[in-house]
Amino acid sequence: MTEETVDAFHRGAFYLVQPKGRGHRAGMDAMLLAAMVGPLQPGGKGPLKVADLGAGAGAAGFAVASRIPEAEVSLFELSPEMADYARRSAALSENEATNQRIRVFEADVTLKGAARNAAGLVDDGFDHVIMNPPFNEARDRKTPDPLKQVAHAMAEGLFEAWIRTAGAILRPGGQLSLIARPQSLAEIIAACGKRFGGLEITPVHARAEEDAFRILVSAIKGSRARLQMRPAFIMHGQDGHAFLGAVDDLNNGRSHYPRRVTGKSV
Amino acid sequence: MTEETVDAFHRGAFYLVQPKGRGHRAGMDAMLLAAMVGPLQPGGKGPLKVADLGAGAGAAGFAVASRIPEAEVSLFELSPEMADYARRSAALSENEATNQRIRVFEADVTLKGAARNAAGLVDDGFDHVIMNPPFNEARDRKTPDPLKQVAHAMAEGLFEAWIRTAGAILRPGGQLSLIARPQSLAEIIAACGKRFGGLEITPVHARAEEDAFRILVSAIKGSRARLQMRPAFIMHGQDGHAFLGAVDDLNNGRSHYPRRVTGKSV
Repeated sequence: MTEETVDAFHRGAFYLVQPKGRGHRAGMDAMLLAAMVGPLQPGGKGPLKVADLGAGAGAAGFAVASRIPEAEVSLFELSPEMADYARRSAALSENEATNQRIRVFEADVTLKGAARNAAGLVDDGFDHVIMNPPFNEARDRKTPDPLKQVAHAMAEGLFEAWIRTAGAILRPGGQLSLIARPQSLAEIIAACGKRFGGLEITPVHARAEEDAFRILVSAIKGSRARLQMRPAFIMHGQDGHAFLGAVDDLNNGRSHYPRRVTGKSV
Repeated sequence: MTEETVDAFHRGAFYLVQPKGRGHRAGMDAMLLAAMVGPLQPGGKGPLKVADLGAGAGAAGFAVASRIPEAEVSLFELSPEMADYARRSAALSENEATNQRIRVFEADVTLKGAARNAAGLVDDGFDHVIMNPPFNEARDRKTPDPLKQVAHAMAEGLFEAWIRTAGAILRPGGQLSLIARPQSLAEIIAACGKRFGGLEITPVHARAEEDAFRILVSAIKGSRARLQMRPAFIMHGQDGHAFLGAVDDLNNGRSHYPRRVTGKSV
């Protein structure tokens, strides 16, 4: 039996059951991704339907549901084991504020057509799609942990397949938000292609003088707005340890990261 | 007769003849572009052969020749009028330190094959290609100045054509450096395609809290290195006016902006 932990996020606002020392454990990436989801716009009709593709144990989706009371979050995860962690998180009494608004689907997000719809990935069914796709390209060193290997196995054309699904399941004007490595930028931009416009790219740097280690990318389905490069996030200040204030607020669910150019309201 | 000015650059290190109040006058963009050209690597055999595509009055090329004594710079410019300004700059006695190392070609940088070679755009002939392609897309407001219109007329596929030429005229391992608007990033990355790798992208922001208004992109012919996003340049500090020190040094030719990952040495 795999050892597991129950970890507090957003300073105790929700909890996640996760494999201990194995698999892809949720961290800052998931919290920054969740912060890209804005609340319902004023006058908007709820619920805000959010899909998390490749949700793992569900960290980003729970963070969205925790911060946004109007959000209904569908977690899509290929690995039965990771989906099971998400289901067990959704059964925790500590998560009663979010549990009724979380659904877990075991699904391959690269499905197409009718099979995709049958898996819960419904055409035009969501207002916001978030994703933190697995990485580690083939040329990276193989990790010895098979569970982590599944989470990190980067297939050729992954972004094309995942972003194709995002384009299908978002309503027109809906928002795609993702976190990835800078080296994936070319593939991400190509996959957005004519499906998405208004790309906004935010580099994330560990320290001000270092190259970015992540990028946040958001885009609007069907938009023709121009690509923009936004001011970078710097995780650590001069003292070398503490998160800078604004990033810490995003990481802990106290604020979200709005786009410059928004899509159509819900 | 068009009025003109003779302007000092790099605090008097070289001078440019430019149309007064008309055409595309050289400024910070050209100086940042020039700063992307590094000197000969230690032990490298000169000269360092640099091509400036769409050189206008030649500002970036003169800046390179001024800072790097081993540089031989070929300016390629479509407009006879702008090329003439470059030739007249090359005839100024004030520019005697650079004049013998500057050549001006009236040429369409989108030529292909034998015609391209005949125009001076010689296959594998250069160590470094720089470009600051004209912009203003069709959907931008038309400018009433016809000379500026030529310089700013953004054609569909411009980056594809210009970067195709850069890929042809660079030696293997040679460097492409360009400055552009963020909204051109998708087209630039697509045009680099399999011709170039090791893209390094540096956003340039007027102020820390504003979106980038330019990007610097460099790439190595034939490289398979990963795309990197480097720390941004911030032009203006809190006081709102003076260039920040490091950027000021680049703008005035006192330093250059080296890549993280260099190509093969000359």
